[in-house]
Amino acid sequence: MTASTTAATVADPVVGIVMGSDSDWPTMEAAALALTEFGVAVEVDVVSAHRMPTEMIEYGRTAADRGLRVIVAGAGGAAHLPGMLAAVTPLPVIGVPVPLKHLDGMDSLLSIVQMPAGVPVATVSIGGARNAGLLAARILAAGTDDEATRLRAAMVAYQAELGDIARAKGERLRRSRA
Amino acid sequence: MTASTTAATVADPVVGIVMGSDSDWPTMEAAALALTEFGVAVEVDVVSAHRMPTEMIEYGRTAADRGLRVIVAGAGGAAHLPGMLAAVTPLPVIGVPVPLKHLDGMDSLLSIVQMPAGVPVATVSIGGARNAGLLAARILAAGTDDEATRLRAAMVAYQAELGDIARAKGERLRRSRA
Amino acid sequence: MTASTTAATVADPVVGIVMGSDSDWPTMEAAALALTEFGVAVEVDVVSAHRMPTEMIEYGRTAADRGLRVIVAGAGGAAHLPGMLAAVTPLPVIGVPVPLKHLDGMDSLLSIVQMPAGVPVATVSIGGARNAGLLAARILAAGTDDEATRLRAAMVAYQAELGDIARAKGERLRRSRA
Amino acid sequence: MTASTTAATVADPVVGIVMGSDSDWPTMEAAALALTEFGVAVEVDVVSAHRMPTEMIEYGRTAADRGLRVIVAGAGGAAHLPGMLAAVTPLPVIGVPVPLKHLDGMDSLLSIVQMPAGVPVATVSIGGARNAGLLAARILAAGTDDEATRLRAAMVAYQAELGDIARAKGERLRRSRA
Amino acid sequence: MTASTTAATVADPVVGIVMGSDSDWPTMEAAALALTEFGVAVEVDVVSAHRMPTEMIEYGRTAADRGLRVIVAGAGGAAHLPGMLAAVTPLPVIGVPVPLKHLDGMDSLLSIVQMPAGVPVATVSIGGARNAGLLAARILAAGTDDEATRLRAAMVAYQAELGDIARAKGERLRRSRA
Amino acid sequence: MTASTTAATVADPVVGIVMGSDSDWPTMEAAALALTEFGVAVEVDVVSAHRMPTEMIEYGRTAADRGLRVIVAGAGGAAHLPGMLAAVTPLPVIGVPVPLKHLDGMDSLLSIVQMPAGVPVATVSIGGARNAGLLAARILAAGTDDEATRLRAAMVAYQAELGDIARAKGERLRRSRA
Amino acid sequence: MTASTTAATVADPVVGIVMGSDSDWPTMEAAALALTEFGVAVEVDVVSAHRMPTEMIEYGRTAADRGLRVIVAGAGGAAHLPGMLAAVTPLPVIGVPVPLKHLDGMDSLLSIVQMPAGVPVATVSIGGARNAGLLAARILAAGTDDEATRLRAAMVAYQAELGDIARAKGERLRRSRA
Amino acid sequence: MTASTTAATVADPVVGIVMGSDSDWPTMEAAALALTEFGVAVEVDVVSAHRMPTEMIEYGRTAADRGLRVIVAGAGGAAHLPGMLAAVTPLPVIGVPVPLKHLDGMDSLLSIVQMPAGVPVATVSIGGARNAGLLAARILAAGTDDEATRLRAAMVAYQAELGDIARAKGERLRRSRA
Repeated sequence: MTASTTAATVADPVVGIVMGSDSDWPTMEAAALALTEFGVAVEVDVVSAHRMPTEMIEYGRTAADRGLRVIVAGAGGAAHLPGMLAAVTPLPVIGVPVPLKHLDGMDSLLSIVQMPAGVPVATVSIGGARNAGLLAARILAAGTDDEATRLRAAMVAYQAELGDIARAKGERLRRSRA
Repeated sequence: MTASTTAATVADPVVGIVMGSDSDWPTMEAAALALTEFGVAVEVDVVSAHRMPTEMIEYGRTAADRGLRVIVAGAGGAAHLPGMLAAVTPLPVIGVPVPLKHLDGMDSLLSIVQMPAGVPVATVSIGGARNAGLLAARILAAGTDDEATRLRAAMVAYQAELGDIARAKGERLRRSRA
Repeated sequence: MTASTTAATVADPVVGIVMGSDSDWPTMEAAALALTEFGVAVEVDVVSAHRMPTEMIEYGRTAADRGLRVIVAGAGGAAHLPGMLAAVTPLPVIGVPVPLKHLDGMDSLLSIVQMPAGVPVATVSIGGARNAGLLAARILAAGTDDEATRLRAAMVAYQAELGDIARAKGERLRRSRA
Repeated sequence: MTASTTAATVADPVVGIVMGSDSDWPTMEAAALALTEFGVAVEVDVVSAHRMPTEMIEYGRTAADRGLRVIVAGAGGAAHLPGMLAAVTPLPVIGVPVPLKHLDGMDSLLSIVQMPAGVPVATVSIGGARNAGLLAARILAAGTDDEATRLRAAMVAYQAELGDIARAKGERLRRSRA
Repeated sequence: MTASTTAATVADPVVGIVMGSDSDWPTMEAAALALTEFGVAVEVDVVSAHRMPTEMIEYGRTAADRGLRVIVAGAGGAAHLPGMLAAVTPLPVIGVPVPLKHLDGMDSLLSIVQMPAGVPVATVSIGGARNAGLLAARILAAGTDDEATRLRAAMVAYQAELGDIARAKGERLRRSRA
Repeated sequence: MTASTTAATVADPVVGIVMGSDSDWPTMEAAALALTEFGVAVEVDVVSAHRMPTEMIEYGRTAADRGLRVIVAGAGGAAHLPGMLAAVTPLPVIGVPVPLKHLDGMDSLLSIVQMPAGVPVATVSIGGARNAGLLAARILAAGTDDEATRLRAAMVAYQAELGDIARAKGERLRRSRA
Repeated sequence: MTASTTAATVADPVVGIVMGSDSDWPTMEAAALALTEFGVAVEVDVVSAHRMPTEMIEYGRTAADRGLRVIVAGAGGAAHLPGMLAAVTPLPVIGVPVPLKHLDGMDSLLSIVQMPAGVPVATVSIGGARNAGLLAARILAAGTDDEATRLRAAMVAYQAELGDIARAKGERLRRSRA
Repeated sequence: MTASTTAATVADPVVGIVMGSDSDWPTMEAAALALTEFGVAVEVDVVSAHRMPTEMIEYGRTAADRGLRVIVAGAGGAAHLPGMLAAVTPLPVIGVPVPLKHLDGMDSLLSIVQMPAGVPVATVSIGGARNAGLLAARILAAGTDDEATRLRAAMVAYQAELGDIARAKGERLRRSRA
């Protein structure tokens, strides 16, 4: 049902990135890009809680056995996809509130984050798909295997790089005013 | 899986009233009472989208064949039950936003009402379970059979009674100040 | 006062779609389209609660006798039309919160959904006129006559089609990344 | 249909104070008290937009001819009473958003204040019935007759008294800390 | 400090329309237009609570003596003008929440409508300057003089016209679909 | 008009703490306590923008000349006091949003913080009077005189103490679980 | 600086649960309980971003080297702790919005979830500390070691148990109405 | 780490204006302009709480010793910069809520203003960087040195000028309608 982001010979996907409609893709692509930057193989798919509920349940139920270790789910409005997936998998599920035409994503945020006790969804900011990808990388980096060690080091390097970029921006700003 | 509200020999339930937890029952009971007042047989059950997703899907899928004609679903917080049921049944689904400890039901309301195009949920007010029951009665009264005729007349009578009660309140208020 | 959507010889309208102003029509047209797709005859009209209150009351009072079985009402801001119609008809009334220039439809939503006990309005999402049409079709499909059987089957087919479209979108997305 | 606040021989009521239910009376009584303090005769009644729409319309339509000059209307939730009355009378209508169990009166406020162009409602604060009474007094004081002159002077005196009370509070506070 | 809207020989202004900045004029002009349609003489001015507090206080204090009978005040953000004017005049003050760049006028609305007991502001909808003008006309029409009688009749006629326009819109909509 | 917090022979007040009503005192007292802890002399008074506008303007206008260097103003609802004082004094004005019965202080916050360009109010958290006092102390500590040096050192010590208290809390929590 | 939840001889903590003040402990305890149920060793501490910033930074920087694999951080109001920790550690950080006296946790939620691109915080519901603990368990269960396998099985069993409890509640509710 | 806004020979900066990213500069520049108008030397820099936490802490800790007397910090979304700086300096910190793509700055505002007791941030309006600059000038003007005297006089003159501009706007508006 899904396609790995790279050719068949490379690593099987360990993160599944799903969304309710391909109209969420412009938002959600940033999650795939972030994980690709970190060398994490992902699969991407449309899995709608409301339009294909059976496949959605199936996707969640089989995710761990298929080798996925984290699910990133984006949805907007009455955003049920992340929570429903979390209900049928023991994997950590990261929810991305996709802003729709009205309410600026506040409905999406509340529909995703306010889950009842027992079924958590790791929610990121409205439209924050890049952070969803980075959070998935951190989760994989929290493991005890070599890949986790590699990812943790890569995350530390990435954070250092964020600082370098910010410092360079400050440098440019100060120079422009000197 | 469900129990009719009356003895086995009486009418089969035509409205299913479900909620994610029995902690919603103090709110949702008003829906059952309203329908009982109108002589409509109901079944009541706990069907949690997040804790028993398979049965929830099954409940929705079989509802029409089991003779249900309307589903009333109450849920709070990231309230996914009404929308998920609407995804797996062609029946009209009425959603009741149950207010939880925080946010006064605003999260419940948005999670229920902001459904994507294709899968409607008929949403009533925060905590408005009585209105959910009355709306179910109106839906049954929109039919073309004798029961619909009976229900429509009962609804008209009920509305007249609401007016009588309001008028009596006005009478009392005016008298108390005369 | 109203016009059926088709020629005089065809079926009388069973759903009335009304709005406070023709400026709501770009939003509300989707309700008419959805019902037409399902072969349900509709009438469409401007019925303003604030500008033509007498006709509005009259519209609601006579709706059932004129053969209407469901009313869909769109309104924005202090959106009183759906609730006022629900007060004068025993028919199910579906409210569509039309977003205006400010507040993104939140005022419209609260003005429609927060009805007092006794007078329910079946509220759909902000701008969700298509879902209002689909909900009206579900309500008609909840009946016991042949038309209801036909509509229920059509709704099941429509829901299956929604799944097909979503699956095709997933297919395209996966292929674009292979 | 209404009762003047004083014995039959005294002045006919010029302000009508209405509400959707007698449960609004604890909030709305402050409007009657304020007007009584200013010597303005009021009538008080329950007039529900949703439960007695015909009488509500009638109340508004006949208000001016019955001698009323201002209407004060309190309502909560999907608060339609002030706006519907404003639709059927040329009198100024003052709306009081009554806070209900949920949402702290924000739904009441938006349902009352966000009226469409053409039909204004003079909205006061959530639960602000006393201010509604004072606003009615100011409106009567804006007239050109002797009663207006009397009321305007009374309002000026009242405002001076508010200052005196505030100054006395400051005095007490300063003294308590000296 | 102010200019009547018409030549010196015509009626003195009875409504003062003020705003915190001329950037509010595109919003507030509708109030002047509405009153001009009703033949009410208005004056228009910039009176900023925060930038010219002394003149603002002076404007309010002298308003009644200068012949004004109603004040319409528009302001945005931390909108203090309507409430401050209401504090220094016994006249009815109508507040127009002007929407600024952020928050869609919700800050303006709350800053105007949530006045403490004792000092009411008659608040209209966000950006609702036309309704502010119409409300001022209704207030003048609530008087007991000939001008009030004229205005009340004009308001009734205007309301009838609103109905005619709405009916014509319905006619056009129905015809377009016949 | 005001009273210093200490006997007549001690330092003249340099911070004025004012509020619209003595009902704000339970909230605002924390500002006075914080400043007293830092050895800053304060005066406390009721100065209502809406009930004693002339004295309010006067209070602001004369504040600097009377020796005040910072004003702390608390107000709730349509909270105009801090902004109006800022309009008539060059001193820094700190606004405390006092939460009232409804809306949890959100109206107070927006009415205080959303000031137009030109007239700033230094806003602290809802009910955050203690922080208002601390901010006043920081402002005085930003000076160049000996008192500023003393206050800056005291603030550094206070911040260290906050850390000590937090560390002790952690110690207790860890021990309770050991 | 921290204390393991069990005796010295047992496993070193792999999840750090921190909060800005011990007043957050009644909320945050549920995170510790959930992890203890799953046999995960935790440490608990007070680490305030605002009151002990140096230790807070130190806590985050050393967390991975000290053997922590996930951090759970609770904070209320301007809740900076989760985001600041996420800035100085490559570990996944779970944020719990603690509701304070005002705003019902909405400020806490937005302060935690709306992190800028680059630094994700896995946010759970307002007051949702139990879900934070469960999410930490899911993250550990996403590893590739034996402990992960054990935890994943335990999570699957826990989810099954949630279903059993919900089913039993339904059973009881149905029986009470039979 | 920073650059004064003027040549090396001129006054050392006394106000530090910092922001989390140079994308905040279009908003924050107004703070620098306002202070420059008042002849106050400023330094401007990018200091990100999340991307360069160590330098951020260092910036705050050394600010007073480097001669800064006020810090102005702008940030958006989960806006932690102003509060974190306030935690590590005894100087007054002014926070500017920068509006981002979603939520119109409401998240920024709450993240900045809702600081816990002990660590105040002087918050200005959403996007209100000019007011942040003016507030910094008022704080410097609250001192006891000659520069403070100069600044206080300049602020009084500026406020008078604001009045002149407003009066001129009123003049133009009145003339355009004469």
